[in-house]
Amino acid sequence: MRLRNKPWAKEFMEAHPDVLIQEEEGIQQDWHSVFGNENPIHIEVGTGKGQFIIGMALANPNINYIGIEHFDNVIVSALEKAIEADKPSNLRLLRGNGAHLKELFKKGEVDRVYLNFSDPWPKSRHAKRRLTHESFLKRYESILGERGEIHFKTDNRKLFEYSIVSMSAYGMVFHDISLDLHAQMPEDNIMTEYEEKFSAKGQPIYRMEAAFK
Amino acid sequence: MRLRNKPWAKEFMEAHPDVLIQEEEGIQQDWHSVFGNENPIHIEVGTGKGQFIIGMALANPNINYIGIEHFDNVIVSALEKAIEADKPSNLRLLRGNGAHLKELFKKGEVDRVYLNFSDPWPKSRHAKRRLTHESFLKRYESILGERGEIHFKTDNRKLFEYSIVSMSAYGMVFHDISLDLHAQMPEDNIMTEYEEKFSAKGQPIYRMEAAFK
Ligand SMILES: C[S@@+](CC[C@H](N)C(=O)[O-])C[C@H]1O[C@@H](n2cnc3c(N)ncnc32)[C@H](O)[C@@H]1O
Ligand SMILES: C[S@@+](CC[C@H](N)C(=O)[O-])C[C@H]1O[C@@H](n2cnc3c(N)ncnc32)[C@H](O)[C@@H]1O
Repeated sequence: MRLRNKPWAKEFMEAHPDVLIQEEEGIQQDWHSVFGNENPIHIEVGTGKGQFIIGMALANPNINYIGIEHFDNVIVSALEKAIEADKPSNLRLLRGNGAHLKELFKKGEVDRVYLNFSDPWPKSRHAKRRLTHESFLKRYESILGERGEIHFKTDNRKLFEYSIVSMSAYGMVFHDISLDLHAQMPEDNIMTEYEEKFSAKGQPIYRMEAAFK
Repeated sequence: MRLRNKPWAKEFMEAHPDVLIQEEEGIQQDWHSVFGNENPIHIEVGTGKGQFIIGMALANPNINYIGIEHFDNVIVSALEKAIEADKPSNLRLLRGNGAHLKELFKKGEVDRVYLNFSDPWPKSRHAKRRLTHESFLKRYESILGERGEIHFKTDNRKLFEYSIVSMSAYGMVFHDISLDLHAQMPEDNIMTEYEEKFSAKGQPIYRMEAAFK
């Protein structure tokens, strides 16, 4: 993710509180009342420039989506796209850190967690930062409801291998695995920015659906 | 596997009872006394022409290996190779069916099960024949000792995807996963006949180590 400094980011975010929520306000929100309905809540951790979460919100009006991204300079691109898309009422962007999920959501409040092309953190001393490290799995487990799932896509082979082992050791079960998603592209697949980039280079895209037992 | 009929196969097998054991004799054998020691026993189900199991036996003299293959016309090629290799004392070939593992081995008698390039049986009505179908996992679980593992290599993406889901649903845990084994070839990797063929075509080789909890 190229990090150009955008001095106008703060002001721009503050001008659109109906779509973009800051972590400080997000803490202890009741998200169903934010959306004004009881529809399922799906979140993406590390939403980047937002193409996936906005595409999902437009495709599935009966699901509420929250895209979480910790960098101002990145989430403003998602905000721009959300505005272009006329601010779908089932979409919120949350500028915050995935490490704070337990403060941001109540137990069982979330129905699905999406992870897309998460930073691989290839060095083993950085393993704790991977979004499929045990410490993150604990957070997902706590905020996910009973039939909740994690859906994870990546082009990064080592991260995917690590994730299967890490999730399996945690006691998770894999409901679906694809080791070349684009070989038989599911009709409802919504591409992320990174997915477009890496699949164009001919790299296989890995995908899983996993659950806590 | 090309199945040329080999009319001499039966006689050839019977001439080498010190290496090749028929299923009928194998049933209720005490395998540690067959080998005359208490070393760990590793078996391969669907051994084909035997390159892997013979290579493993030569590389690891303190482990006992049994290659199981149900076709006469195929296992005789393994027998030829075993004779060329001077009949390693820690190697046996077993002409028999992997579906009969519970009759062939006592509970906990086996320390590792190798599956290499198992027949994919792509049609879902044939799923029961896949060597990672629940019915086979039950057999492995029964004959494997406490720290026993299944090591599985294949080039077949769909079979590997299926196997992760099937083994995970059974409650198994993955200790190691590689989605491109030859990208960083482990020094001790012994190639099977199929592995040589498919990796030469540039196909990724998938590999896992899995255990029953
Ligand atoms: C490699 S990008 C992928 C972006 C997008 N999901 C895609 O597939 O195109 C990963 C993004 O996750 C964000 N990120 C990483 N760790 C995060 C965390 N703990 N909390 C929030 N966002 C995070 C990064 O800032 C970056 O924008
Ligand atoms: C595709 S070949 C692979 C051979 C070898 N493992 C390799 O990697 O080159 C699969 C072999 O498994 C054998 N096989 C399949 N199902 C079996 C079963 N239930 N019991 C014993 N052998 C079996 C087949 O006869 C065939 O020789």
